[in-house]
Amino acid sequence: MYTYNYLLDFTSEVFKKMGCSTQDSAMISKVFLAAELRGLPSHGMIRIKDYYQLWKAGRINISPNIRIVHETPSTAVVDGDGAIGMIAATRSMEIAMEKAEKSGTGWVSTRGSNHFGIAGYYAMMALERDMIGMSMTNANPLVAPTGSVSRMMGTNPIAVAVPAGKYPPYVADFATTPIARGKLAVAEKKGEKVAYGYVQDKEGNPSNDPAILKEGGSMLTLGGDLEHGIHKGYCLSTMVDIFSCVFSGANFGPFCPPSVAYLPVLEEKVGEGTGHFFGAMRIDAWQPKEAFKSQMDKWIETYKSAKPAKGIERVMIPGEPEREKEERIMKEGIPVIPAIKDDLKEIARELGIGFE
Amino acid sequence: MYTYNYLLDFTSEVFKKMGCSTQDSAMISKVFLAAELRGLPSHGMIRIKDYYQLWKAGRINISPNIRIVHETPSTAVVDGDGAIGMIAATRSMEIAMEKAEKSGTGWVSTRGSNHFGIAGYYAMMALERDMIGMSMTNANPLVAPTGSVSRMMGTNPIAVAVPAGKYPPYVADFATTPIARGKLAVAEKKGEKVAYGYVQDKEGNPSNDPAILKEGGSMLTLGGDLEHGIHKGYCLSTMVDIFSCVFSGANFGPFCPPSVAYLPVLEEKVGEGTGHFFGAMRIDAWQPKEAFKSQMDKWIETYKSAKPAKGIERVMIPGEPEREKEERIMKEGIPVIPAIKDDLKEIARELGIGFE
Repeated sequence: MYTYNYLLDFTSEVFKKMGCSTQDSAMISKVFLAAELRGLPSHGMIRIKDYYQLWKAGRINISPNIRIVHETPSTAVVDGDGAIGMIAATRSMEIAMEKAEKSGTGWVSTRGSNHFGIAGYYAMMALERDMIGMSMTNANPLVAPTGSVSRMMGTNPIAVAVPAGKYPPYVADFATTPIARGKLAVAEKKGEKVAYGYVQDKEGNPSNDPAILKEGGSMLTLGGDLEHGIHKGYCLSTMVDIFSCVFSGANFGPFCPPSVAYLPVLEEKVGEGTGHFFGAMRIDAWQPKEAFKSQMDKWIETYKSAKPAKGIERVMIPGEPEREKEERIMKEGIPVIPAIKDDLKEIARELGIGFE
Repeated sequence: MYTYNYLLDFTSEVFKKMGCSTQDSAMISKVFLAAELRGLPSHGMIRIKDYYQLWKAGRINISPNIRIVHETPSTAVVDGDGAIGMIAATRSMEIAMEKAEKSGTGWVSTRGSNHFGIAGYYAMMALERDMIGMSMTNANPLVAPTGSVSRMMGTNPIAVAVPAGKYPPYVADFATTPIARGKLAVAEKKGEKVAYGYVQDKEGNPSNDPAILKEGGSMLTLGGDLEHGIHKGYCLSTMVDIFSCVFSGANFGPFCPPSVAYLPVLEEKVGEGTGHFFGAMRIDAWQPKEAFKSQMDKWIETYKSAKPAKGIERVMIPGEPEREKEERIMKEGIPVIPAIKDDLKEIARELGIGFE
C-alpha cells in the first residue's frame, strides 16, 4: 500500500525527469492519482509506463505550445501541439471555464493531444468554480459500429459533473461501451469467459471470449445487441468522436493515434493527434446560484429516496460509488500490484529517482 | 394511406380549432408529421388525441406568453407558460440559434412546457442554418434508477444533428432506455413476451412481461442489467433530467406532469411543467464552414466504409435509416391504423372539420 502523497510525488518526479515543467508535472500526476483514488487503476499508475515509452520513442512533446487556433465568445479550438493529454486537457478545460465566465458557457474541442486519463477529472474541475463540467475523448479504435466488424471507435467516455449545495456533486463518468477494455484483459489473464454483449468475433458473431480482440474481433457499444439498443451506444460513441475530432481537426475514429509505443504510428492521418471535447456552464447562467444548488439538493434527495430493489441496500447518485472509494482509498492507501511496481522501479532506476 | 399534405392540413386545422394561431398550428403539425415520416408513428397522429383531451381538460395554454426569464450571452431559461410542447420547443430552439449566431453556441433550458414530440425535429432545425443541433426532454416517469424499483425517469431522449457537405447530415435521436414504451404496448396487445433487459417487476426481478408496468413494474435504462452497463443508461437519463429540469426550474424526475389527460395532475410539484434542453453550435465556431463540411464528409465516408458483419448489407450512419423511411413514406403515403383513424374522425366531428 502506498500513500497518496508518495505516489503523487513519485509521479511528479518521473515527469520532471522527462523534462516537463514543475507545474505540468504536478498537473499530470494529479490526474493519474485521481484515477487510483476513484477506483479506476486501469487509468492510474499502470499508464505511467505507456507515457514513459512514448517519451522515449519521441512521440510526445514535452514543451508544447498549447494555443487557441480558432474561437468565438463561447468556443475555442485548442491545439495541444503533441502534449501529454493531461496538460492539453487541463489547459483546455481552463479555457472553457474562462469562456463560461464571460459568456455563460464555454466549449472547447482539442486536437493534437494524447491519452488524457479519466474523463471525470476535467468535468470535476468545473465544480470548484460553481460550474457544470463536461468532458469527452476519443481513444484507440477497438469498437465496431452497429452492423460492422471494423474497429472504428474507442471506448469514448462521457463525463458530466453538476454542483449541489449541502450534498456532494453529481458526477457521471462512463465509457460508451458496456465495459472498459481493462476488464477484458483481466478476464483473459484469469482464463475466464465474459458475458455476451461485450465483444464479437471477426465475422460479427456474438462471442464470450475476452481474447477475441487478438483474432480480429471487436468490442461492442453500450446496448450490446440490436435487441437492447446497441445502435444507441453507437450514436453516443460517434457523437463523442465528432465533437472531439471533427470539431477540432483531430484524428477521428480509426485514425486515433495509439496511446502505447509498441503500436506503430499510423501511416494515414486525417488531423492532428487525439481529440477531446470540454464544456463548462456557469450554474448562475441557469438559476441564481443558491436556487440552483438548493434545487439540485432536492433532486438528489428525490433520487436517494427511490425504493431500493430487493437485495439492494440503497439507491446511489452518479458519482457516489467513486466518492466512497476515494474516501476509503485515501485512508487505507493505494495498492499497486507487483507487475506494475516492477515497471515503476525500472522507470525510477532509468531516470535516477527513488521508488520503493 | 394518407398523403403528407392531407394529414398536415388536417392536424393544422385541429389545432386552429382548439384556438392556436395559424402560425402555431403549422408549427405543431410539422412536428407531428415529422414523426410519421421518420417512422416513429408512436409520436405522430396517435398523439393528437392526447393533446385534444389535455385541451378539453383545460390543462394546456393555447395562448401562451413564451418568454426568456433568465439569460447570458450563450444561454437562456425559457418559460413555456403551459404551451403545447411543440411551440415552446420550436421557440426555444430558435432562441438557442439566435444566441449561437452571436456567441458561437446557444443553450436553452425550457420549463412550463408539455410533451414536445420527437426530439430529433428540434436538433435538425439547426441544420439549415449550418449549425449543430441538440435536443433533450424529460417525460412521464416510468423508468427506475439503477438498483431501484421506483419509477423516477422518463425514456428521456437525446438528439444530435450535425451538418455535412455532399452527404446528408448525421442525426442521432434515441431514448435512454433500450426500447420505446410503445414497443411494450404492441407486444402486450399481441400477447407476446419481450426480451429481458427492458422491464423489471415491482421487486426488481428481471421480467419479460410487457404488462408488468400495470403491476408496479418499471422500465430499465439503456444497458438493461448491471453486467451490461445499466448504470450508464441511468447516468444518461439523469443528465437529461438535470439539464432539462434543474437548469430551467421544471418538474424533474417523478414530478414530470402526465402527457395524457386520463392521468391526474400531480399534487406535488417542484417546478413548472415539463422541461427540455436545446443546444445550437455554429459549425464555423469550430472550423471554417467548408472545412467543417468536408471533414464531416470524410468522417461519413470512413464510417460507411466499415466492413459489414456477416449477413448485414451495409453499415449505416446515425439518421440514415430514418431518412430512408422518410423518402419512402413521403412517396408511398402515411398509414393510419383503424383505431387511430376512428379517434381522429371523432375529434374532427367534435371540432366540425372534415376527416376521411
